[in-house]
Order: sequence, then C-alpha cells, then structure tokens
Amino acid sequence: MRFAVIGTGTVGRTLADKLVALGHEVTLGSRNKDNETAVAWAEQAGPNGRHGTFADAAGFGEVVLNATGGTVALEALRAAGAERLAGKLLVDISNPLVFSAEGEVTLDPVNTDSVGERIQREFPEARVVKALNTLTAPLMVDPGRLPGEHNVFVAGNDAGAKAETVALLGEFGWPAESVVDLGDIAGARAMEMMMPFWLRLMRAYGTAEFNYSISRAG
Amino acid sequence: MRFAVIGTGTVGRTLADKLVALGHEVTLGSRNKDNETAVAWAEQAGPNGRHGTFADAAGFGEVVLNATGGTVALEALRAAGAERLAGKLLVDISNPLVFSAEGEVTLDPVNTDSVGERIQREFPEARVVKALNTLTAPLMVDPGRLPGEHNVFVAGNDAGAKAETVALLGEFGWPAESVVDLGDIAGARAMEMMMPFWLRLMRAYGTAEFNYSISRAG
Repeated sequence: MRFAVIGTGTVGRTLADKLVALGHEVTLGSRNKDNETAVAWAEQAGPNGRHGTFADAAGFGEVVLNATGGTVALEALRAAGAERLAGKLLVDISNPLVFSAEGEVTLDPVNTDSVGERIQREFPEARVVKALNTLTAPLMVDPGRLPGEHNVFVAGNDAGAKAETVALLGEFGWPAESVVDLGDIAGARAMEMMMPFWLRLMRAYGTAEFNYSISRAG
Repeated sequence: MRFAVIGTGTVGRTLADKLVALGHEVTLGSRNKDNETAVAWAEQAGPNGRHGTFADAAGFGEVVLNATGGTVALEALRAAGAERLAGKLLVDISNPLVFSAEGEVTLDPVNTDSVGERIQREFPEARVVKALNTLTAPLMVDPGRLPGEHNVFVAGNDAGAKAETVALLGEFGWPAESVVDLGDIAGARAMEMMMPFWLRLMRAYGTAEFNYSISRAG
C-alpha cells in the first residue's frame, strides 16, 4: 500500500521505517523538497522509501499519517492540499504542545477543541482518525517492547476509517482487542489532554517507555 | 485518627464510610448544618460518624479530604476556614467539571492552572496533595475490585504530606508501589486533565469500574 507520512521528526521517521519494513511504499513529506532529514531518510530506506513536499507525499499516499507537531499540523495539511486528502484515511498522531520560555508545557487548542477536530472540520472530505498520540514512537510500532497487554485508542467520525486504522495498528503489532474506540472525533480532545499526565509520568519514571493499560473487572 | 470529609456526594460518603470502617472518627461537612444527606449519613455511621458545617468538619479533622466538586471547592474551603486548614494534610480529590446545556463536559480551570494549585495558593499553610481524582469512588477505597496491579497518583509540594497520603491509601488497600508520585502540586493539572479521557472510557466500556495501570519494561 502507499503511505504519506507528513512530518520528518522522530514519530514520522519511526512510522515510515516500520511501513517500509512491512513492505509498504512511503513518501516522507516535509515543508521543503530538499529537507536534509527527509533526503537522508529516503536514501537509507531503499526503493520503497521516497521523500518530497507535503503535497508530493499526500498525492502519493492512499493513506496519510500526520506526524507533525500539533501546533503546525493544519498549516502542513493545507500545504498538502485538501484535494489530495479527500476520501483518504488521515491518521492524526499529533499533540499541540506549546513550550514556554520557562519550560512550562501547555496545550493549544485544549478543553473545547483539539487538533483532531480542527483537521476534520477544515478537511471534511478526509476521514480523520486520532490515534497513537498517547505513547512514545518506538512503542507505536513495536508494542511488544512492553510486557503484557496495554492499550491504544482511536477516535473518529467514520467507522470504516477506524476499522482501517485498527487493521494498520494490527500490522504494527497491536491486537485488535487492545485498541479502544473512544467514539467520535471529539474524543481527540480527551486523547490530547492526556499529554500533561504522560509528561509527568515520563519525569517520574525517567523513561518514555511506558504505556497505559486499562484494568477492568472480570 | 480524626478526619474531615468536605462534601456529601458519593465520593465524600464513600470515603467517610471507609474511614469509619477502619476505626477512624469522621465529621462529614456540608454547606448547611442540617443537610439531610449528612444527617442521614451520620445516623447510620455509628458513634464514629458525625456531621456538621464545613467549618465544624475542618475544626474536627486532623486530616481534611476535599470531596466537593472542583468548581465549588475553593468556596467550600473558604467556609471551612484557613485557620482550620493550616498545617493539616488536605487531600484534594476534586475535578472541575463544567456541564453545558448541550451535555458537553469541559474543565475550568484547565491547562495553565488546576483546582489543586488554586487550593494550595489560597491556603499556603495547608499541605495540599492531589490524589484519587482519577477513578470512581468504590475503587478509591477498594482497589481489589479490579484484578492485578493498577495505579493511583499523588502530586503536592510537601514530601511529608505525600508520605502521609501514601499511608492513608495503604489503609484503603493500595500497596505503596502502586502509588505514583507525579511531583509538585502543578501535577494536579495533569491529573485533572485526565477526566475527559476517563469519561470517554466510561462511555466505551459502559461502566466506571476501570482504572489505569501503567505498563513498563522489565
């Protein structure tokens, strides 16, 4: 299958590496065609890895993964172009973290809106699913790094798009029963608002290699 | 030991019941001295259960548990009186949920502040610890209702107050190693911002009887 990965940071490259390893074709999209990180990634990725602009990537992919920072996601997707997103599964992995000069981290948007919702509103023909924003990149594509059962979450308005996301997560190693459906795209708000808690846990444990497991009776 | 429980809702009464069952003395505090719920609770609680105003409760308790709604917590604690909170462990269990006419739930404060922080700022002589706001009342005092290990979290500026909270949680059935220290009282922000996620999970599972277990390597 052909994938667009929008964003060349650790999350984007980790996802792109995994997709290529699974035999998929990937274009890693960046703001500028000559982005050094993207060029270097494509060089080592083999014949199934390409690089290009956000628009190149979105035009190439049958599925689009947004791995940009949440505060620049809309701008990147505008550059990708609404017509290249229309009808496609668009998995939004971003968190709208704002870092202050004092080192304080807050979210924008928050509480009454979310990046996931904003993307769905601005690109109504894209089939947006919020997913994978609640854990560190290496775990996204290799859940077996942690013992036992642990969970990922999806939120979106399109049931078919969520089912496609569950299948993609399955390729990454997530059993279908480990994926919890949090409902419509407004659930993105809940998922993005986990980030301050995640950052505190990372500080408490001294590692990002942890994840949530939801315990239930019976 | 003598406890003040501020707030007569399900959380307050569940905590008060458990404390009495553990042999502690409890005054359940409400806005009005003749609050019917508080009177009824004290009647069935036996000799170790009393009721009174917020001020009566805070004057009685060596430890104060804030089980009011987060949007009215400061008002309730003002009525309790700063002088009756000074020097005491004040465990804040509240969540600042705001319910709109359309059924939407948001938080106020959020993102740049929290109820826990506001309480600590307004009552600097109280030793505030945020705890237990991330799970349903029956589980707070009976973690064995769920199988296996699962977690609760504490945040506060006073290490001694957090140690006392861990001891109290131990009486409720939480092994010390299940309690994760999220740092200073600004961690209350992270804990309160879990609430939208918790509400989505409750809807997904059709029950409030679940909790977070943090999975880690090794």
